[in-house]
Amino acid sequence: MSTLGIVKRNIVRADAAAVEKLGRFGVATIHEAMGRVGLMKPYMRPVYRGARICGTAVTVLLQPGDNWMMHVAAEQIQAGDVVVAACTSENEDGFFGDLLATSFQARGARGLVIDGGVRDVDELERMGFPVFSKAIHAKGTIKATLGSVNIAVVCAGAIVNPGDVVVADVDGVVVVPAALAQAVADAAEKRESFEGEKRAKLAAGVLGLDMYKMREPLAAAGLKYID
Amino acid sequence: MSTLGIVKRNIVRADAAAVEKLGRFGVATIHEAMGRVGLMKPYMRPVYRGARICGTAVTVLLQPGDNWMMHVAAEQIQAGDVVVAACTSENEDGFFGDLLATSFQARGARGLVIDGGVRDVDELERMGFPVFSKAIHAKGTIKATLGSVNIAVVCAGAIVNPGDVVVADVDGVVVVPAALAQAVADAAEKRESFEGEKRAKLAAGVLGLDMYKMREPLAAAGLKYID
Amino acid sequence: MSTLGIVKRNIVRADAAAVEKLGRFGVATIHEAMGRVGLMKPYMRPVYRGARICGTAVTVLLQPGDNWMMHVAAEQIQAGDVVVAACTSENEDGFFGDLLATSFQARGARGLVIDGGVRDVDELERMGFPVFSKAIHAKGTIKATLGSVNIAVVCAGAIVNPGDVVVADVDGVVVVPAALAQAVADAAEKRESFEGEKRAKLAAGVLGLDMYKMREPLAAAGLKYID
Amino acid sequence: MSTLGIVKRNIVRADAAAVEKLGRFGVATIHEAMGRVGLMKPYMRPVYRGARICGTAVTVLLQPGDNWMMHVAAEQIQAGDVVVAACTSENEDGFFGDLLATSFQARGARGLVIDGGVRDVDELERMGFPVFSKAIHAKGTIKATLGSVNIAVVCAGAIVNPGDVVVADVDGVVVVPAALAQAVADAAEKRESFEGEKRAKLAAGVLGLDMYKMREPLAAAGLKYID
Amino acid sequence: MSTLGIVKRNIVRADAAAVEKLGRFGVATIHEAMGRVGLMKPYMRPVYRGARICGTAVTVLLQPGDNWMMHVAAEQIQAGDVVVAACTSENEDGFFGDLLATSFQARGARGLVIDGGVRDVDELERMGFPVFSKAIHAKGTIKATLGSVNIAVVCAGAIVNPGDVVVADVDGVVVVPAALAQAVADAAEKRESFEGEKRAKLAAGVLGLDMYKMREPLAAAGLKYID
Amino acid sequence: MSTLGIVKRNIVRADAAAVEKLGRFGVATIHEAMGRVGLMKPYMRPVYRGARICGTAVTVLLQPGDNWMMHVAAEQIQAGDVVVAACTSENEDGFFGDLLATSFQARGARGLVIDGGVRDVDELERMGFPVFSKAIHAKGTIKATLGSVNIAVVCAGAIVNPGDVVVADVDGVVVVPAALAQAVADAAEKRESFEGEKRAKLAAGVLGLDMYKMREPLAAAGLKYID
Repeated sequence: MSTLGIVKRNIVRADAAAVEKLGRFGVATIHEAMGRVGLMKPYMRPVYRGARICGTAVTVLLQPGDNWMMHVAAEQIQAGDVVVAACTSENEDGFFGDLLATSFQARGARGLVIDGGVRDVDELERMGFPVFSKAIHAKGTIKATLGSVNIAVVCAGAIVNPGDVVVADVDGVVVVPAALAQAVADAAEKRESFEGEKRAKLAAGVLGLDMYKMREPLAAAGLKYID
Repeated sequence: MSTLGIVKRNIVRADAAAVEKLGRFGVATIHEAMGRVGLMKPYMRPVYRGARICGTAVTVLLQPGDNWMMHVAAEQIQAGDVVVAACTSENEDGFFGDLLATSFQARGARGLVIDGGVRDVDELERMGFPVFSKAIHAKGTIKATLGSVNIAVVCAGAIVNPGDVVVADVDGVVVVPAALAQAVADAAEKRESFEGEKRAKLAAGVLGLDMYKMREPLAAAGLKYID
Repeated sequence: MSTLGIVKRNIVRADAAAVEKLGRFGVATIHEAMGRVGLMKPYMRPVYRGARICGTAVTVLLQPGDNWMMHVAAEQIQAGDVVVAACTSENEDGFFGDLLATSFQARGARGLVIDGGVRDVDELERMGFPVFSKAIHAKGTIKATLGSVNIAVVCAGAIVNPGDVVVADVDGVVVVPAALAQAVADAAEKRESFEGEKRAKLAAGVLGLDMYKMREPLAAAGLKYID
Repeated sequence: MSTLGIVKRNIVRADAAAVEKLGRFGVATIHEAMGRVGLMKPYMRPVYRGARICGTAVTVLLQPGDNWMMHVAAEQIQAGDVVVAACTSENEDGFFGDLLATSFQARGARGLVIDGGVRDVDELERMGFPVFSKAIHAKGTIKATLGSVNIAVVCAGAIVNPGDVVVADVDGVVVVPAALAQAVADAAEKRESFEGEKRAKLAAGVLGLDMYKMREPLAAAGLKYID
Repeated sequence: MSTLGIVKRNIVRADAAAVEKLGRFGVATIHEAMGRVGLMKPYMRPVYRGARICGTAVTVLLQPGDNWMMHVAAEQIQAGDVVVAACTSENEDGFFGDLLATSFQARGARGLVIDGGVRDVDELERMGFPVFSKAIHAKGTIKATLGSVNIAVVCAGAIVNPGDVVVADVDGVVVVPAALAQAVADAAEKRESFEGEKRAKLAAGVLGLDMYKMREPLAAAGLKYID
Repeated sequence: MSTLGIVKRNIVRADAAAVEKLGRFGVATIHEAMGRVGLMKPYMRPVYRGARICGTAVTVLLQPGDNWMMHVAAEQIQAGDVVVAACTSENEDGFFGDLLATSFQARGARGLVIDGGVRDVDELERMGFPVFSKAIHAKGTIKATLGSVNIAVVCAGAIVNPGDVVVADVDGVVVVPAALAQAVADAAEKRESFEGEKRAKLAAGVLGLDMYKMREPLAAAGLKYID
């Protein structure tokens, strides 16, 4: 009955072309293109400056202080995947370091998003293996209890299903359901195409008040100017 | 494409008898019966002493500082439901007070579980309307932006689907998927029946070390007794 | 040049009748009557169940780990005052206990609101001296550094001027500027008079959707009902 | 080399009479009598109202998500002991519930102080088994990894050695080194004897400013009264 | 009666020469020169390395999840201003990104200090638009509810009046009341001139104990040296 | 009776050769070599990128908002020491800046580890004086109350005795008891020598599942693969 102790081998990954296209946009743009949903909480931060990820999710559910399932997950990684690790309770132990990163990278993983801690951060940067985590912590873990691989997980407040697209940059981490990948990529493209014109106007000194025609609704809402 | 702006009217609620049976067990027991999954984070606390809830979830996704969807949710409540409210970002405003509680109670709701703030706590206690929340906050909210009702939400780290069973007591809040309600209730019953015997032995001074036969595995793990 | 080391003796307290009138309303109602401003952050909690305060502020600015100014403040207390204590940096030491409470009570104080820690909580409850604080902590403090009394302070995110009305109940703490006390009390009264009627309708099963005429604006905003 | 995997059987407990004497004073008084040291952090709170503990420490070092060592500790408990549980990393899982409480109580334990979570809180209250913890959480734990029993631990920021006296009440938790128990108890007694007189004076309206002769040092520090 | 829905157009900015002079000192020095007051809480951090701001405050009071007022504020910006944004409740949504930064920069703003979240951090760095914030979060906001512009606000625990000088660097953010700008700048200059000599002595191995003549007061306070 | 007001002059420092050897390993490796104990909590972070420390501890116990004891500690520093500062209560004031750093550096200190705040961070980086702290905060402190130097302290959850080895890098801070320094250094060396071979295998695509022979225990624990 439990959702623990399961590894799902065959998962449906988002369309590769859609993933690549999503990789061209920032997290803020993608989240807006989805209608302002899909973000992880802002405590998820890159462990080194400049880290950026876009790929399809292999999900892992960990137990506190135990990274056994990370090794199970490694075997399920295909080129272009991102490992997304959640935990059954809040725990900032260092579930992941340079050895696992070496293994994940050898399997073709593009990075790790983990609702917990990681270590060997300098080595991760040298390897160019991007990680977004809740904490950096040298604390080691054991290998004793089952979790699961490739089930639906909640990572930093967001639901992630295996195969979803995960995009991470300095602004945060966003999850795009696999079935929506192409549509969201198209919407992001359209959204971005509008931004250049807006930016030029604002740079020229045009006010958002006028560009977005806000003066009338602000007055209707009761805004009062005083001297 | 967005999951916002949607109200699902027909949801499949967990079997009523299974819900009632689950209501006889504590949250800790149910969570163990599920294989140690399904709990919300421990920051979710009852707003008054003795609050306890068991019912089927009507879910709401709120926007920060905005409780418009709570009114939309009220119409979807049936007798025996629990409203489970999530928010698109972390926010502790007082989304809920005695007027909404009056409305929810009139519709047959058994309580509210909200990943945000509530107010009018004294009145909620007088009404006997149990609430589990992240915060108590007098801060009022507006009614301006769409969220959704009866979509899958993440509330305090747990996935809640409309119709799932939600049980809350002093130990926390647990979510039982609708399809598993009967099986979990049965497993909880079995689990509890074993506990009485254990309790009697422990009360008589038998050690868990002996009752659970732990001495050998502890020695195997390397435990050393020193004087 | 510094605002430290100052005690202002003559402060303008809010009108006594307005203060008494404000005391009849809950914090949530008063905050709504002010236009949804004036609340302290929700981490401010009563140290015992049932604590409630309404009075005029004598303000204190403390230094971390130092309660010297509390003794200076005691002399400035008049009957009906509430001491509101802020600190120059975040600190949860126990700045206040039963001896100071005895002194404050003897001077006519109605309670304490402190952005820090307090101790002797059982004794405070026995004395009936209500306190709202950030923390309960037995840690004692020293008497070595100057702060100020009766200057404008920021307490738990709210600006408090000496003489302002401070109301605290289970829902939180609200600050009403002295000059607005009567107007806010009147607005709170009006607001509450409307609530009875609404409550009756909601209790009878009328939906907020209909009572507040929300169906049309919801549809205009794009809300979709699905089955 | 590691301090894990050890159980120390013979510990030197503080003198029984000193422990009983310490039990007559509040945590704030004891901490002052020690020179303002020895307190745990203020996030340690009683899990039910009125909980109070005084006894000699049996210490436990737990691993995150694992309560195996609690069973090992049970055997080391003697009448009058308090179990003090620390964890190798921050973790709020429910390490302790009514079954372990039954066992601890049967062994003569006076309570539990744990830098983690506990569950079955209603049952703990019914049993009259006092617990001070960082969290209440229904989350169950496993029994797989060694920690230690009766080594020096850091619990909520305080060093606790086995045999030390631990006193807990609504104001917090204080640790008195075994060797200092009698001296601290005597100092607490002396301190308390002074308080009655002070309280009477303050209740009569005498200001701390005068009773403690603060006016001169305040003026020397530069305090200015303005109107 | 409410302080919401107001835009004050004519504000008195601190003297320009005093602002420029303050810009030559670090936040720690300015805060000391003010008598150790005026700092925001330490959770306010630069969003990119090397960010530094000094200018006069245009203040904004936002609603949670709503950045409408940022557009209203843009029109009030004059060259040399810093926008200081507070929120009516705690909220880490991304109220500000590269488009608003383009507009603010075009109006002559020197930066933003916001008690909330921002996004497009890489672009902000490329633009050289310094921002100090509580969080980085891609979460977008709506434009639906009135706040205010150029009223007194509490930002990260500090009172900011429009026209005050705001200085931000790696050590934090300090607010200098407009009327004190020149005096504080002079005091900061004097303070800094003393530091060079002290630094040279300390670098040469002179102890602070001797340089500040601390040995006697330490002995008087009871400090004991043991071997 | 109190542990405050004491300076211990003669402390036993860890063997210099062992300290130098420990300096060649990362914090994660050393912590593993100790059996996964000895780490400070992960909120301790370097104040500038690339900071790294290895040396013997001179310990300081501070009072909140007071850095008097830092000056007392300066005199006890010998070449190769690291100052480890704890505080009697949680406080993030800026206890340390460039002047004290100049003094510490002149005495031969290799860095500072402080469970509190520091300031002048840019200058610390220019000086090459590494600091690991809980916070960066410009807030100045006073010099009024005694703490102690070279007593056992709890810093960020870890017990530190004077003379212990403290190693800090991007992954955190670890404390090695002086008596274990050589043995831990040797164990770290051995551990690291094994890692190269493992890394090569993993880089070649060998799975941890096979390299660590996990498949059998995973199956025994009940792991199920589904398609």
